[in-house]
Amino acid sequence: MAPPHPLDPLSAAEIEKAIAVVTEAHGEVFFNVVSLHEPRKADLTRWLSSPSTTSLPRRVADVVVIAKGGKVYDGLVDIASGVITKWEHMEGVQPIITMEELQIVEHICRTDPKVIEQCVLSGIPESDMHKVYCDPWTIGYDERHGSTVRLQQALMYYRPDPDTCQYQYPLDFCPIYDADKQAIVAIDVPAVRRPLSKAAPIDYHPAAVERQGGYRRDLKPINITQPQGVSFKTSGREVEWQNWRFHVGFNYREGIVLNNITFNDKGSVRPVFYRLSLAEMVVPYGNPEHPHQRKHAFDLGEYGAGYMTNSLSLGCDCKGEIHYLDADFPTRDGGVRTIRNAICIHEEDSGILFKHTDFRDDSVIVTRGRKLVVQQIFTAANYEYAIQWVFHQDGTIQPEIKLTGILNTYSMNPGEDTKGWGTQVYPGVNAHNHQHLFCLRVDPNVDGPRNTVFAVDTVASDAPVGSPENLYGNAFHARRTKLGTTGEARTDYNASRTWEIANTDKLHPYSGKPVSYKLVSREVPGLLPKEGSLVWKRAGFARHAVHVTKYRDDELWPAGRHVPQTSGEPSRGLPEWIGDGSENIEQEDIVLWHTFGVTHIPAPEDFPIMPVEPITLLLRPRNFFSNNPCLDVPPSYCSTPSQVAAGNQGVLDATDKVSKLAFNEAGASCCAPGKSKL
Amino acid sequence: MAPPHPLDPLSAAEIEKAIAVVTEAHGEVFFNVVSLHEPRKADLTRWLSSPSTTSLPRRVADVVVIAKGGKVYDGLVDIASGVITKWEHMEGVQPIITMEELQIVEHICRTDPKVIEQCVLSGIPESDMHKVYCDPWTIGYDERHGSTVRLQQALMYYRPDPDTCQYQYPLDFCPIYDADKQAIVAIDVPAVRRPLSKAAPIDYHPAAVERQGGYRRDLKPINITQPQGVSFKTSGREVEWQNWRFHVGFNYREGIVLNNITFNDKGSVRPVFYRLSLAEMVVPYGNPEHPHQRKHAFDLGEYGAGYMTNSLSLGCDCKGEIHYLDADFPTRDGGVRTIRNAICIHEEDSGILFKHTDFRDDSVIVTRGRKLVVQQIFTAANYEYAIQWVFHQDGTIQPEIKLTGILNTYSMNPGEDTKGWGTQVYPGVNAHNHQHLFCLRVDPNVDGPRNTVFAVDTVASDAPVGSPENLYGNAFHARRTKLGTTGEARTDYNASRTWEIANTDKLHPYSGKPVSYKLVSREVPGLLPKEGSLVWKRAGFARHAVHVTKYRDDELWPAGRHVPQTSGEPSRGLPEWIGDGSENIEQEDIVLWHTFGVTHIPAPEDFPIMPVEPITLLLRPRNFFSNNPCLDVPPSYCSTPSQVAAGNQGVLDATDKVSKLAFNEAGASCCAPGKSKL
Repeated sequence: MAPPHPLDPLSAAEIEKAIAVVTEAHGEVFFNVVSLHEPRKADLTRWLSSPSTTSLPRRVADVVVIAKGGKVYDGLVDIASGVITKWEHMEGVQPIITMEELQIVEHICRTDPKVIEQCVLSGIPESDMHKVYCDPWTIGYDERHGSTVRLQQALMYYRPDPDTCQYQYPLDFCPIYDADKQAIVAIDVPAVRRPLSKAAPIDYHPAAVERQGGYRRDLKPINITQPQGVSFKTSGREVEWQNWRFHVGFNYREGIVLNNITFNDKGSVRPVFYRLSLAEMVVPYGNPEHPHQRKHAFDLGEYGAGYMTNSLSLGCDCKGEIHYLDADFPTRDGGVRTIRNAICIHEEDSGILFKHTDFRDDSVIVTRGRKLVVQQIFTAANYEYAIQWVFHQDGTIQPEIKLTGILNTYSMNPGEDTKGWGTQVYPGVNAHNHQHLFCLRVDPNVDGPRNTVFAVDTVASDAPVGSPENLYGNAFHARRTKLGTTGEARTDYNASRTWEIANTDKLHPYSGKPVSYKLVSREVPGLLPKEGSLVWKRAGFARHAVHVTKYRDDELWPAGRHVPQTSGEPSRGLPEWIGDGSENIEQEDIVLWHTFGVTHIPAPEDFPIMPVEPITLLLRPRNFFSNNPCLDVPPSYCSTPSQVAAGNQGVLDATDKVSKLAFNEAGASCCAPGKSKL
Repeated sequence: MAPPHPLDPLSAAEIEKAIAVVTEAHGEVFFNVVSLHEPRKADLTRWLSSPSTTSLPRRVADVVVIAKGGKVYDGLVDIASGVITKWEHMEGVQPIITMEELQIVEHICRTDPKVIEQCVLSGIPESDMHKVYCDPWTIGYDERHGSTVRLQQALMYYRPDPDTCQYQYPLDFCPIYDADKQAIVAIDVPAVRRPLSKAAPIDYHPAAVERQGGYRRDLKPINITQPQGVSFKTSGREVEWQNWRFHVGFNYREGIVLNNITFNDKGSVRPVFYRLSLAEMVVPYGNPEHPHQRKHAFDLGEYGAGYMTNSLSLGCDCKGEIHYLDADFPTRDGGVRTIRNAICIHEEDSGILFKHTDFRDDSVIVTRGRKLVVQQIFTAANYEYAIQWVFHQDGTIQPEIKLTGILNTYSMNPGEDTKGWGTQVYPGVNAHNHQHLFCLRVDPNVDGPRNTVFAVDTVASDAPVGSPENLYGNAFHARRTKLGTTGEARTDYNASRTWEIANTDKLHPYSGKPVSYKLVSREVPGLLPKEGSLVWKRAGFARHAVHVTKYRDDELWPAGRHVPQTSGEPSRGLPEWIGDGSENIEQEDIVLWHTFGVTHIPAPEDFPIMPVEPITLLLRPRNFFSNNPCLDVPPSYCSTPSQVAAGNQGVLDATDKVSKLAFNEAGASCCAPGKSKL
């Protein structure tokens, strides 16, 4: 068997090996993380440049365990030799909360006398405790409890029926769970009590829909087929498609990681990005009433987009011809679990790629575009996030996130004032305002690792209207501001701004501008929690739309490595790395961090399950290619002026012959409208 | 034959009738416009509310003609009676430039001695004048020539071969064409001359691609089929789909007009919009050097999105099962031309509509969404605009514009400095900076005609971090500012702003907020030509992201009815209508005007033909439906906790059985991952 690619996630066998080595050395521990410790960039770059003559970087496991007494250890295990090369006791940190740890809390809550007491107070008979559920969240940070004890807060709900959407019966109190003791150690009870809502449930499962009149019957199927197969090729986890080539990694934390992204530009394989991932996110809620300030989940750093990822399925999560990749993770007690179909890869028609008609003679070219989608979907308790990495033929990469799932909700009394911090989306259900802020980590390699970032603002000329330089007042241009240091690179968003990741060593032969990839992102609401707030301190990455740092191995996650229960004093991750902001980032190996997202003021339309809300952004080549790089995509139809003059002789007609008229009328003409037009 | 719907465009027979009436009364004239004069809103509303008992509004033709001596007349012709009810000589205005008028200029240029002289000076032999082309544009406004003479400016190009993309050989001078004289009356010649570029052409037609190595061969077909037919129904030009119902109008000016849009909310047909259209646009170029300030086309007001629209074709412009509508327009000399397939209507799969997995047991619902697309594509000389009106099942309407085609270009000498006003996208080719600013006209009818607009800003609480009201600093909310007068409604964009079109007479039973549709638009760069500039004066609509006016019949086009050669003094359209800004627009029949778009700093990737750049925005129901209005869309897969507990007994599995694995491996599991996950 061929050895794994150095960026392949650890296989089940490798995870087992690492676990065995650690167990041998340290006895029984809880496994929190056993994940690929990515090769050092210098090593990997050396190997990538000459894989046949360079030895493979060693396979190393990044291990986090929780030992007796809640002691946390960070370790590294060399897989081949079985040698533990690092073993460090981490004081005062809490590693990521795993799905198994989440599962336990509900069972504890159901039998805890103080929780039962609160349930009874809320109007739930003690005999109904099996109908009480909780979504356990990390506690965020609660100054009363600090960071040394591993805690979760249990957001409580009641389900009258196991199939009822639980988010419509929130309970008003919040137990605090100690993971080491496996016990409820406190309960936050509000001053104003909110007994269980008496509203009838509103549900989305089939029986409930049946009771409301049943499913609509007027939706006819759409089939998507590729009779000649797909247009992409894979070799292990490497994908090749339409001049793109990249490696699909996956880890517990970020989920999909795209590595070593190159574009074959007429035979020249040009590096574009060394690594792309969603590196962190934070979902701050806007209700200031205690203890809701604790609701600001770092879904990646506190739970993991990999650990929470869905097993996808054909014809359901994805239509057409799909390729899947699985994911392997350790279990708490040292086993391995496999998430089947954790990633799907497929093509989609993407509408017109380009079109032009000559108005003189209706000679025309219509070329349809194609896109390749690499997708995962993860469930963070109530919400789901579908993360799509979309590749386009024109050299654009488009990360797209689709938000769906269910609102996090809190109880409210009839007639209670939400004070504007939330919306009553259903009787007795208060959905608090919140933001979804994502941090995209872009490790560029735009024609090589030495890159420079510019903020680019399109601005009017300074010259006044009527002046000789701007007589009619129409002058405008792009003002490029070089971000020379990490301090200067802390930049905010405005509607006329983009950022350019440029290789200033290489100028475009026509435009004279440096080759670049441009970040075009328009969903950038900014962090609403104020400067100095708890969220602002913990989520340093969200203070600005863009940060840039000098590349360093292991600086992967912008809120820090171990996120749960960080106080934000000092701020971990980006603020630490940037420090006084004096570091040079001009013509260096750099990393760009971009925070984008949405602010969500809930509405009843989002309940009881939310129609997808998409957010997207673009990484676009600008001055990178000598010209449009997809002129060689076969057109559907092309006629030239000379062909039109010759009665359409010799035109290229490759129109899809499968498409047809909806109602079978006669005479839909082809692309050459000829005399129909004038 | 049933009479036409009152909003149907004039039929060919009706156009012929109007032309005959006018010719009878006024002799031979040039027909500029013969288009439906839309029924007065009061009349139409009366008819819509009771079509069986109310007589149909009369069919009236809105007529514009150019008579001898360039005299312009606006008229109205009652079709049935053949009576001209209005005939007004319009002093000092120029109506829209038709395709036929555009076609003439090139022929005149080729034989004009002064143009030939300039061509020769540029390096083109006189024998090559048949290779000289021009894109005739309205002159915009040139103070030297004023508004009384009907003028075009001829942007000149050379094609060494008829099949060569002309935009790579721009010429540096600009003839001015007098439409009444049918002659070139002036030529603008720059101080610095730029002879014809000697660069080899770069082309996108098949022979050129063949010479560059040919088309890529690795793109496999994707077929989209609907074996049971489409899910929409039509009755004339009315479309019914997934609770939506609307009428598809079309005119020479705006192209697609959507009328009387309603949503069937569980049996209650609720009005949403009275009329939606793209009402105007302006494309200001940013080069201040004379005469480039004249390049700021109002593509709708000066040329017409209807007049310029493409004849679409199956499997090429649109894939799947398509319904088409044609368009009829008058010709200059009083005939009728038909554009076949001017509008296409089709469904598309739109990915996941909603999904949620319960992390406890992997019970899951996955429901795929569908969208309906109503599309036209128009060619404005070099550029193409694909205008899509996308309807979603969740009540969202999404106008989407895809920009493609070819950059407008100007010549440059080798080594010439573009001064930042443009980019050399190919040797000798300077593509100037420009904006595409579109004005969406929203005539709302949110549960009735009396609506109010609010600017909604998501903002942090004013209370400081640490204060009792904001102890942890996380408080934020939506600040709603009522736009009470037309003056207050002149509002600008920021990244945290949306606008709400509300019916304050009707509060949502749960949220207590008024039913509303929200405008969510994130591509709002603002007008870059400065205040007081020529463009600022002529394109008053573009000064702010949003304007709101009180509804008045015939206030349809925000830069005025006759746009060519307006000086902007006074500013026509919106600024006229708004006046001193004192008019009340609270709880009134109102119209919202939204200007959005992109700023385009060209790059070589855009040349010689530009990959599609999409712009989109949303009109979303908020507090409009009692809850998620698409719960009854049949899921692909749904399992409930009780079904999972019973071994997946009774789960709903309607997954698409046509989808398959890309590489035929065994074992892609279904949506219920069951034990695969833990």
